Amino acid sequence: MKESRERRPESGEVPLRQDEGSDRPTALDLPSPPLSPEMAAYLDKCREKIGFVPNVLSAYAHDDAKLSAFAAFYNGLMLAPSGLSKLEREMIAVVVSAANHCFYCVSAHGAAVRALSGDPVLGDTLAVNWRAAHLSPRHAAMLAFAEKVAYGSFAIGEPDREALRLAGFSDVDIWDVAAVASFFAMSNRLASATGMRPNGEYFGMGR
Amino acid sequence: MKESRERRPESGEVPLRQDEGSDRPTALDLPSPPLSPEMAAYLDKCREKIGFVPNVLSAYAHDDAKLSAFAAFYNGLMLAPSGLSKLEREMIAVVVSAANHCFYCVSAHGAAVRALSGDPVLGDTLAVNWRAAHLSPRHAAMLAFAEKVAYGSFAIGEPDREALRLAGFSDVDIWDVAAVASFFAMSNRLASATGMRPNGEYFGMGR
Amino acid sequence: MKESRERRPESGEVPLRQDEGSDRPTALDLPSPPLSPEMAAYLDKCREKIGFVPNVLSAYAHDDAKLSAFAAFYNGLMLAPSGLSKLEREMIAVVVSAANHCFYCVSAHGAAVRALSGDPVLGDTLAVNWRAAHLSPRHAAMLAFAEKVAYGSFAIGEPDREALRLAGFSDVDIWDVAAVASFFAMSNRLASATGMRPNGEYFGMGR
Amino acid sequence: MKESRERRPESGEVPLRQDEGSDRPTALDLPSPPLSPEMAAYLDKCREKIGFVPNVLSAYAHDDAKLSAFAAFYNGLMLAPSGLSKLEREMIAVVVSAANHCFYCVSAHGAAVRALSGDPVLGDTLAVNWRAAHLSPRHAAMLAFAEKVAYGSFAIGEPDREALRLAGFSDVDIWDVAAVASFFAMSNRLASATGMRPNGEYFGMGR
Amino acid sequence: MKESRERRPESGEVPLRQDEGSDRPTALDLPSPPLSPEMAAYLDKCREKIGFVPNVLSAYAHDDAKLSAFAAFYNGLMLAPSGLSKLEREMIAVVVSAANHCFYCVSAHGAAVRALSGDPVLGDTLAVNWRAAHLSPRHAAMLAFAEKVAYGSFAIGEPDREALRLAGFSDVDIWDVAAVASFFAMSNRLASATGMRPNGEYFGMGR
Amino acid sequence: MKESRERRPESGEVPLRQDEGSDRPTALDLPSPPLSPEMAAYLDKCREKIGFVPNVLSAYAHDDAKLSAFAAFYNGLMLAPSGLSKLEREMIAVVVSAANHCFYCVSAHGAAVRALSGDPVLGDTLAVNWRAAHLSPRHAAMLAFAEKVAYGSFAIGEPDREALRLAGFSDVDIWDVAAVASFFAMSNRLASATGMRPNGEYFGMGR
Repeated sequence: MKESRERRPESGEVPLRQDEGSDRPTALDLPSPPLSPEMAAYLDKCREKIGFVPNVLSAYAHDDAKLSAFAAFYNGLMLAPSGLSKLEREMIAVVVSAANHCFYCVSAHGAAVRALSGDPVLGDTLAVNWRAAHLSPRHAAMLAFAEKVAYGSFAIGEPDREALRLAGFSDVDIWDVAAVASFFAMSNRLASATGMRPNGEYFGMGR
Repeated sequence: MKESRERRPESGEVPLRQDEGSDRPTALDLPSPPLSPEMAAYLDKCREKIGFVPNVLSAYAHDDAKLSAFAAFYNGLMLAPSGLSKLEREMIAVVVSAANHCFYCVSAHGAAVRALSGDPVLGDTLAVNWRAAHLSPRHAAMLAFAEKVAYGSFAIGEPDREALRLAGFSDVDIWDVAAVASFFAMSNRLASATGMRPNGEYFGMGR
Repeated sequence: MKESRERRPESGEVPLRQDEGSDRPTALDLPSPPLSPEMAAYLDKCREKIGFVPNVLSAYAHDDAKLSAFAAFYNGLMLAPSGLSKLEREMIAVVVSAANHCFYCVSAHGAAVRALSGDPVLGDTLAVNWRAAHLSPRHAAMLAFAEKVAYGSFAIGEPDREALRLAGFSDVDIWDVAAVASFFAMSNRLASATGMRPNGEYFGMGR
Repeated sequence: MKESRERRPESGEVPLRQDEGSDRPTALDLPSPPLSPEMAAYLDKCREKIGFVPNVLSAYAHDDAKLSAFAAFYNGLMLAPSGLSKLEREMIAVVVSAANHCFYCVSAHGAAVRALSGDPVLGDTLAVNWRAAHLSPRHAAMLAFAEKVAYGSFAIGEPDREALRLAGFSDVDIWDVAAVASFFAMSNRLASATGMRPNGEYFGMGR
Repeated sequence: MKESRERRPESGEVPLRQDEGSDRPTALDLPSPPLSPEMAAYLDKCREKIGFVPNVLSAYAHDDAKLSAFAAFYNGLMLAPSGLSKLEREMIAVVVSAANHCFYCVSAHGAAVRALSGDPVLGDTLAVNWRAAHLSPRHAAMLAFAEKVAYGSFAIGEPDREALRLAGFSDVDIWDVAAVASFFAMSNRLASATGMRPNGEYFGMGR
Repeated sequence: MKESRERRPESGEVPLRQDEGSDRPTALDLPSPPLSPEMAAYLDKCREKIGFVPNVLSAYAHDDAKLSAFAAFYNGLMLAPSGLSKLEREMIAVVVSAANHCFYCVSAHGAAVRALSGDPVLGDTLAVNWRAAHLSPRHAAMLAFAEKVAYGSFAIGEPDREALRLAGFSDVDIWDVAAVASFFAMSNRLASATGMRPNGEYFGMGR
């Protein structure tokens, strides 16, 4: 199927390279004010831990107070102790982001699922359609609820919450499933609406 | 059209009173841990300023750290200085919440639009369909963008952002429109998914 | 949250007043032919009973015969004896109108629900999302059917009708639920398509 | 493609005959009260003019007053003088009914388009997808507006009405386009929700 | 309802005749290269058997190899032995084509259903809404699955396949139901995207 | 973000490994009849050229004649000379497959885009949302048309085809864009409806 001469096709047009792109984290022309020492330290910690500053943080950095509030809110949701493991929260992130066709978030959180699970196929499956994955009843219930949060939250009712309880989730866990799924409904939209680009590093992570 | 004897209809069934409802802010059975002094003070300030603690905060109060992070994130977005007035941000909140049929958020932010604008009809109009409102070109562009964030963010592109620039929005303002609209995509979903009930006080506010 | 100085915001733009609007009942330039004595008397009765002529009637008044036929059809449906109380018919009206984001109809029939029920919260809840209301099994079944009429009538089948029978509705009642829900599918569209404006009186009714 | 032996297939199952159906006009068990002399005469006139009583009238006949009001409303809309010809009104009826996948209305009004136009292909085309028809600019504008009334009336605004004006429609004509399209949004839903069956006579009419 | 003078309406505009259309099978200007002897013979066999060359074949004839591959693929799917009768496969074709509002395919396969079943009403019913047809449990299950393939294949899972098994379909039969429904998802889109016109002969076939 | 100890989370449940899956190419229990010499040779050529037999072929192999027809049809569409390069055809495949959330096809054709373009990011971008890619005007027009084929073919008209002509596509090229996009509308549905699993080899291809 692959032939190297295809790269100079006899017909059609060679697509642009995706890495010859913008040097801005979004399609917006946002200011770069000096960061507070706390936020500068936080971004340094990112660089140290994962090797780069995720573009969502670079984008928020146009406003130091908002960067700080976003980071605290995000970390409390995704990294703090919870009845959901970090991987489970990332699984929800990927499923919602795939529903919303959000390139930034599928890239970043697909990488996180690969990294946390050690199973690259899991991330790739969830990034297209979670129904195609082999899932435990717990995870199937969790992702079905998350998908309904993404697509039709107005129709969620007691039977949907009861299905999670039957799958072993406590009421606090249900809050967390709802909160993570809802967070990515936000994050996906902010990324798409501002033309946010994923860092190149995400593509190879965990492969 | 109204006849008092109708309340005891000869046919059909009298609907349940809506205020004979639950004593919980959501449909979930969440814990009530003691609050930190900071958060206790914050909720006191709410009571003092608007007369009650919004149920979204009572619900978040099952986890002090999350309440704190949510309040900071929300206040930075909705109350901090911005190229958008507070009222404009509330107008976006109502339009997105109406798109998502979120009862909690339409009630709370519809009340805020009434209160901030002094025009009860504006809030009621946006709560059903912003296209029915008399709007300046700036506000029509802002709400059209917000609605697209709500319904089809995956299809947003440069022409959508350019339409906001033509209506006088700076790139930082565009971030703010996107961020507020996206925030309510989250908030609406969290409220619907957890069965969050609006405080009764919202219904009469600004009327 | 409300501060009077907000009305002169340091940023953004003050929204237009909604009551500084058009003096026409719709966005169309319709003629005002003389009314027949019957229709003149009918509109007088409206003024006497509810204090004003609903704009849907003023709009239909461009054609005396159509006004007459509409009034007879409407009154037979909404006011004649039925297994559904008048309030139940208005509840259906609001739910369908909310599904269709029809500003005229949510305003007019939301007011009717408030007036007939004496419960302003019921009207406001149905105007956003009936699932958020406390409902008896009868009303939940009735509104679920009405919503399916609004959104996906092509998929209605015997199981949907059977669910109404199980909730105590006779076959004539089912006709009435279907007829009222369908009527507002029409009314909502005519109002939106012609830019119909609700009378200002509706906003305060029953509050 | 056709082989008579196919009717006794070696595999699969022979479908039920569609004319071995119900003897009721709908799936509901509705009463048959005696008709008023006026309505009895009206149904007789139907039998005389088109050879049968359309099932929508037989269904409405469970309530003499409602039958009378429906007939007057329908006839005023579809048969009274208008800037739209009767055929144009039937074209709108078919397009909206196809959008709603309403079997009763596509059958009845497809037959009317065939009969009034003398062009069976026109009816068949509109019954599937009006975009596939050869249309004058006037008819293309009219049907595009009607389709938007059917699918997304909440998004109709001044530009949609202006497009009709540019195609030569007066404001009263726009009311009529909107009113006819909206009427079938009702009619389609009532027919589908009550399981209304088309009279067998419609299928061959105008072929 | 029909009056011959209506064809020269006092108002409105007479619609264009649908048979005064294009002489090309699609809206594209495709070449007419000489056919291979095999394909020339195949088209001759069509003319002999059904009296004309279906426009889908005339359109594919711009490329002899593609015509040949399409014919083989189509015939293997629709005419070869299968646990589904030819008529059942045509019923699926019509249901999917109606879901996609494809004028070419509803015309051609509606004609095939009429021809193979000898029941013109069956074809007309499926062409609008299969739920309105009298169907055996086998056919109801088959068409419900086909419709889900058309509208929401991403959500199909084991319960959907199990429903077919319960209705008596083998796993090979399920493949065939899926393959036929999927084929028309393709065919409908190719026809609509290229503006393919049905041959006039289809309209009268089987009536 | 990644911590190896996360794989044994203190909370939640470790997800199932995706490679401990089924040994069947689909969720159906299909027969394995002996292949014809031609088809056996064809599958051998696959093994030789890309190292394995794609599961779509293994699945079709339950019927030798259908496998043969599918392979000829597919190869004529995707590999034969065309005004579209092979890579452009694969780009369309990925965009349509992402719209349909088809795991098999996004995996297989995402791999093909990576292999043919030598740009892994291009494949990953198109697999989520083509609007996020850097595209030439030709490719943007081509993918916008393909997406409309996927989501709303019934609304395609001359302006859509004209947009492709303006971007330099001939009418035969437009056929090819439509044919490839339509093919994957089929392929995606067949894969989802039968529970087709991608070969593990696809995941690493071209990375």
